[in-house]
Amino acid sequence: MSANPVTLPLSGYAARNFGFEVRGKTAVVTLNCPEKKNPLTFESYAELCDLFRVLARDEAVKAMVVTGAGGNFSSGGDVHEIIGPLIAMDTVGLLRFTRMTGELVKAMRACPQPIVAAIDGVCAGAGAIVAMASDLRFGTARAKVAFLFNRVGLAGCDMGACAILPRIIGQGRASELLYTGRALPGEEAERWGFFNRLCAPESVLADALAMADEIAAGPTFAHAMTKRMLHMEWAMSVDDAVEAEAVAQALCMQTEDFGRAYRAFAARQKPVFEGD
Amino acid sequence: MSANPVTLPLSGYAARNFGFEVRGKTAVVTLNCPEKKNPLTFESYAELCDLFRVLARDEAVKAMVVTGAGGNFSSGGDVHEIIGPLIAMDTVGLLRFTRMTGELVKAMRACPQPIVAAIDGVCAGAGAIVAMASDLRFGTARAKVAFLFNRVGLAGCDMGACAILPRIIGQGRASELLYTGRALPGEEAERWGFFNRLCAPESVLADALAMADEIAAGPTFAHAMTKRMLHMEWAMSVDDAVEAEAVAQALCMQTEDFGRAYRAFAARQKPVFEGD
Amino acid sequence: MSANPVTLPLSGYAARNFGFEVRGKTAVVTLNCPEKKNPLTFESYAELCDLFRVLARDEAVKAMVVTGAGGNFSSGGDVHEIIGPLIAMDTVGLLRFTRMTGELVKAMRACPQPIVAAIDGVCAGAGAIVAMASDLRFGTARAKVAFLFNRVGLAGCDMGACAILPRIIGQGRASELLYTGRALPGEEAERWGFFNRLCAPESVLADALAMADEIAAGPTFAHAMTKRMLHMEWAMSVDDAVEAEAVAQALCMQTEDFGRAYRAFAARQKPVFEGD
Repeated sequence: MSANPVTLPLSGYAARNFGFEVRGKTAVVTLNCPEKKNPLTFESYAELCDLFRVLARDEAVKAMVVTGAGGNFSSGGDVHEIIGPLIAMDTVGLLRFTRMTGELVKAMRACPQPIVAAIDGVCAGAGAIVAMASDLRFGTARAKVAFLFNRVGLAGCDMGACAILPRIIGQGRASELLYTGRALPGEEAERWGFFNRLCAPESVLADALAMADEIAAGPTFAHAMTKRMLHMEWAMSVDDAVEAEAVAQALCMQTEDFGRAYRAFAARQKPVFEGD
Repeated sequence: MSANPVTLPLSGYAARNFGFEVRGKTAVVTLNCPEKKNPLTFESYAELCDLFRVLARDEAVKAMVVTGAGGNFSSGGDVHEIIGPLIAMDTVGLLRFTRMTGELVKAMRACPQPIVAAIDGVCAGAGAIVAMASDLRFGTARAKVAFLFNRVGLAGCDMGACAILPRIIGQGRASELLYTGRALPGEEAERWGFFNRLCAPESVLADALAMADEIAAGPTFAHAMTKRMLHMEWAMSVDDAVEAEAVAQALCMQTEDFGRAYRAFAARQKPVFEGD
Repeated sequence: MSANPVTLPLSGYAARNFGFEVRGKTAVVTLNCPEKKNPLTFESYAELCDLFRVLARDEAVKAMVVTGAGGNFSSGGDVHEIIGPLIAMDTVGLLRFTRMTGELVKAMRACPQPIVAAIDGVCAGAGAIVAMASDLRFGTARAKVAFLFNRVGLAGCDMGACAILPRIIGQGRASELLYTGRALPGEEAERWGFFNRLCAPESVLADALAMADEIAAGPTFAHAMTKRMLHMEWAMSVDDAVEAEAVAQALCMQTEDFGRAYRAFAARQKPVFEGD
């Protein structure tokens, strides 16, 4: 499905299925089919996957923002363009599809750049999964996050939701959302720890960008290590995790950014990090 | 201890140690010795275990409610009928007992039907464990949930509590409850995510039944897969979980319920799921 | 670095790098360099590590309190005494250091005594880690908990933070703290489950001591089993955890404390536990 795979450098990349822009060290993906509430299609899944895989090798982009155009995040898999064809698909084709969607989550977790989702309005199905697979989530009070797979006759175990969602909001609350498909409103999403912050609709994207820029201005070699370890240590014993972190942090202590911070502190200045 | 093991069909099953009723696709277990606040006994443990094991093979019951009679959920293991005999028991007998109680939790997690606990009043010891091992918990403000094993001289690691409770309410809060045995009141239980919803005492059972009926009216083949994955993926890496879900969801996409939902959507109707 | 290793009995132990006192069955560690907000140094890391390792063999101390003097918990690794030397250190030395700091977390998790942290004021860097590695955390509204490793050019994966913090407050909130290094104020820390209780600054130490004393007066053989299982079961499947708890609880049922509780109950008295 990737006739024109994403290539480096990303700063000049013209996306085919969504908006894409690099502003300084932060790249912004905008799902932008607002008249249909920004659904995902076979093509946009594949291109997003390519993009996040390429990001893993990009050295200029240091943080990501994912958002939707026109007051909604994403309505998820398009009923006509995705669900219709799936109904007619054979076993081999179905597994090829579910693996491709899972690849998107894996690519988002594997790329070293922290991803901030800016979420307003509808955030449903695969859209909710993209939000969940991000590292931070800024939302609005009027946002509605719905893991509505049961509503379309499917299981809540879609693209890693049964593993990832309980770690964000707890097993009991995740179970409720996955069995009922009900929409989680913004304030409850913040109270449960799904949203990191509630923002005004007019500022949620700017707030997410500011956060991404702040992260991108930090020690990005170290941030990438943080992201890797947050991912790797889920299925590790505590003692193994402590040992893995000892090795990772010893490596970070050999970066220039560690020295930059120390010298800035000694000079009573704010450090300027460069990511090496 | 299972002189008369539970057999199929469950719709006509006459339970010996608790109330049991099948209403439509939902089965209701009522711990019903209200004058003693519905304690568990050797016999009720064994029969509950049998029941949940048989449920795994039942194709008519699609959701479960567990509740207690007379304004309390359960006071847990009966002091005279359980603790007394345990004091006199040898090593072999003790491990046989603790394994049997653990079997109840395993059976509740292994049966494909989501379990909704309706919790009012006292919910203590093994009663709190039964609530914890359920999938959803509806409670009341006057409910008191107490993992009080330390109060009877025992460890908090009873029937899986040290693994399951932290995933519902977080490691710090679970530690506090297990070291102190203090009663968690209903409002705090909701705030912490132990209760999914706070209900009025007079409606908590009806609310839990409505939720179970809603789940039972859903795509139950898919729900069973959700439950299995929520259980299996606790000790999996994220990437393994994503792959496991790709296979599981591709299977669910071959059920009739997936097609039913699509056709209902196309016809602008509400889908009627049949669980196949 | 341990010229004078900690030895038993601890009741008479004169600590070199922090305050240490045994009051009844509870030992209190006080980080006590208040003019510098109680930083950790190479020497205090090593001595704390020794202390917790020796505690594992101590049979008189049954609970621990960790606190800081002068209205702050700890400012973490001292900039001049730790960060400066690290900048000049080679790979072998750096890994020796990060492993030593990780050893402190491992020792805190491995000792059988539950640890209650009493946290006021600054709780930053390695100080925040010591708080996180404790079993319970009592804090104040004016406390500020900052995992500020990114501010000094390092990764959030320090001493197990990427494994432990998400299990206390959830993956999304932990990610935010580790990427931004921002200070978590006391009320938010309680709302997120990082603090078990918010206390007044003038009573937080007394409240933590009362909690530790309550734990120390409980069935401490069983408490030690609870702590071990809360630690061991993080990377276990649910079924394995249930089986591990069956064995552990059967062992606890053979302690005298279990009989003491039963006899006290029969006599309508409060049990007096002795930890055997």
